[in-house]
Amino acid sequence: MRPPTIRDVAERAGVSKSLVSLVLRGSDQVRPEKREAVLRAAQELGYRPNAAARSLSEQRTRTVGVLLNDLRNPWFVDLLDGLNSLLHANGLQMLLADARLNRRTGQDPADPLLDLRVDGLVVVGTLPDPAALGAVAERIPVVLAGSREPAPPGVDIVAGDDERGARLVAEHLIGLGHRRIAHIAGYGAVGELRRGSFEATMRRHGLADQVVVEPSDMTEEGGYRTTVRLLSRPERPTAVFAVNDIAAIGALSAAEELGLRVPRDLSVVGYDNTSIARLRHVWLTTVDNTSHEVGRRAARCLLERFEGACREGRVQLATPTLEIRGSTAPAP
Amino acid sequence: MRPPTIRDVAERAGVSKSLVSLVLRGSDQVRPEKREAVLRAAQELGYRPNAAARSLSEQRTRTVGVLLNDLRNPWFVDLLDGLNSLLHANGLQMLLADARLNRRTGQDPADPLLDLRVDGLVVVGTLPDPAALGAVAERIPVVLAGSREPAPPGVDIVAGDDERGARLVAEHLIGLGHRRIAHIAGYGAVGELRRGSFEATMRRHGLADQVVVEPSDMTEEGGYRTTVRLLSRPERPTAVFAVNDIAAIGALSAAEELGLRVPRDLSVVGYDNTSIARLRHVWLTTVDNTSHEVGRRAARCLLERFEGACREGRVQLATPTLEIRGSTAPAP
Repeated sequence: MRPPTIRDVAERAGVSKSLVSLVLRGSDQVRPEKREAVLRAAQELGYRPNAAARSLSEQRTRTVGVLLNDLRNPWFVDLLDGLNSLLHANGLQMLLADARLNRRTGQDPADPLLDLRVDGLVVVGTLPDPAALGAVAERIPVVLAGSREPAPPGVDIVAGDDERGARLVAEHLIGLGHRRIAHIAGYGAVGELRRGSFEATMRRHGLADQVVVEPSDMTEEGGYRTTVRLLSRPERPTAVFAVNDIAAIGALSAAEELGLRVPRDLSVVGYDNTSIARLRHVWLTTVDNTSHEVGRRAARCLLERFEGACREGRVQLATPTLEIRGSTAPAP
Repeated sequence: MRPPTIRDVAERAGVSKSLVSLVLRGSDQVRPEKREAVLRAAQELGYRPNAAARSLSEQRTRTVGVLLNDLRNPWFVDLLDGLNSLLHANGLQMLLADARLNRRTGQDPADPLLDLRVDGLVVVGTLPDPAALGAVAERIPVVLAGSREPAPPGVDIVAGDDERGARLVAEHLIGLGHRRIAHIAGYGAVGELRRGSFEATMRRHGLADQVVVEPSDMTEEGGYRTTVRLLSRPERPTAVFAVNDIAAIGALSAAEELGLRVPRDLSVVGYDNTSIARLRHVWLTTVDNTSHEVGRRAARCLLERFEGACREGRVQLATPTLEIRGSTAPAP
């Protein structure tokens, strides 16, 4: 039995050969149904497209290392799905490492992956020292996904557009009649971008003097304590926008404890659309980062560099959407 | 500068050399404070104990592959911590693979790890086809952690004691005066063991006729739908014991929707002590699987097999504890 060819995939999917090729290169110009059909056909046939490329350079392990910032916060799951779908369609497999665990043991977090000579590296989330990736990027392609910290030369960044996401939240709350809106802020580039855009949107709506910002450590406990402080002010805010879902969960508990009903007395919004925000028991209005798309684009960046694209690192932003659920309502 | 020796570690930790050796072999005979002190000293000094063993067999990659069943349910995080602490102290690093992602692409889930020639494999959670691990176990040591399915020959199992955990739950609820207690059951060996032990405990307390068991798919949505059915019965249960935390979260939503207050009108208990159960907004009574200990023991099994222990696979059970939080109260 001969191995399946690109022609077989095209036939099974009912599309042209050049469309299959477009899909496998991760093009944006293909409709989602067509893309799905091609990927499904490739999988069903066990099509491995890179036989030629593989024999070109026998040193390749056909493995991409994925360095996760911290497995405890599972916001990255959709991103991995997106990454995996395109890598697999190109005959590449993924291996993961948990940067937090490696850090605790004093290692450089990417070491285990590099020791096994992965062909490329995707860093998911924010590392404390992204500059250290510069040396790695001189040897293999490196992409930062879901992070906005400054990257070393030659490293691509793919992330959600935090400024747009924060603007959507502010406009949603203002549209519901809220005026006094508090922000539980975070840290790092992501924290700065979300806060800055929230403040700018409030200013544009003439609400600059209604802005309240309190810093947090982006944890549930931090969100809880910050919200207790916010709700004890003489001029209580009617809405709270938290820098991430987990801090927003803390805000929900604080409201409950102070006898305020969400959303009747207080609207709460998170960010990231994590699985926790989707729990019926929580049902949090939040920003969806289109993480699947971020993952797919990160895979495409890697593939282009595998094919020899040599260029400056670039920043690509995916467009987030607002998921309106049960934690926001018109201002009381 | 000479590399640190076991003597340096002992000195820094203020213990004997033989105690350091015991800790690095993962012995149970060492008090937790001493163990912590030794592991900390080893880390601070950058001690790599296996230099000799390493040179013995140059083919070793000093890497252990960890196959995770599904990254979306983060119950395994503490287990990885425990696994990592002991592996690292022995100069081994960890690489992860997500079985769900690999399955979706039609691969055998362990393939990427085996292709890179890991020295050993830890499977975390329940795979659909554990028998397939038999072939792997003939080449490298394999340990199943946190799963209770029958294992192929030569494979060790380390898990929490599900029967004991379910008994703790039943006794807690009975002690609170509950009589009519429902169980949201799960599937697989873990589901069977928890259900069987719950029923046996009820029988021992003369409550065999008060047992209500409904199956579920172990998801939030499944827990929700099952609980709606349970609470619509003419003889409504006053307590619900769910097979895992995520189904218990579904039960909380169902209670809320039907106008029942937890724990005043209905007690709810989960299983796994996931990060979601610990959220202040949820604060679920649940069973803690001592996952960190399960991870450490799994590491010890691997290390023993690396050192040449050749034996039948064996089953080791860690002793769970009950975490009593805000979702249980005396029967109404």
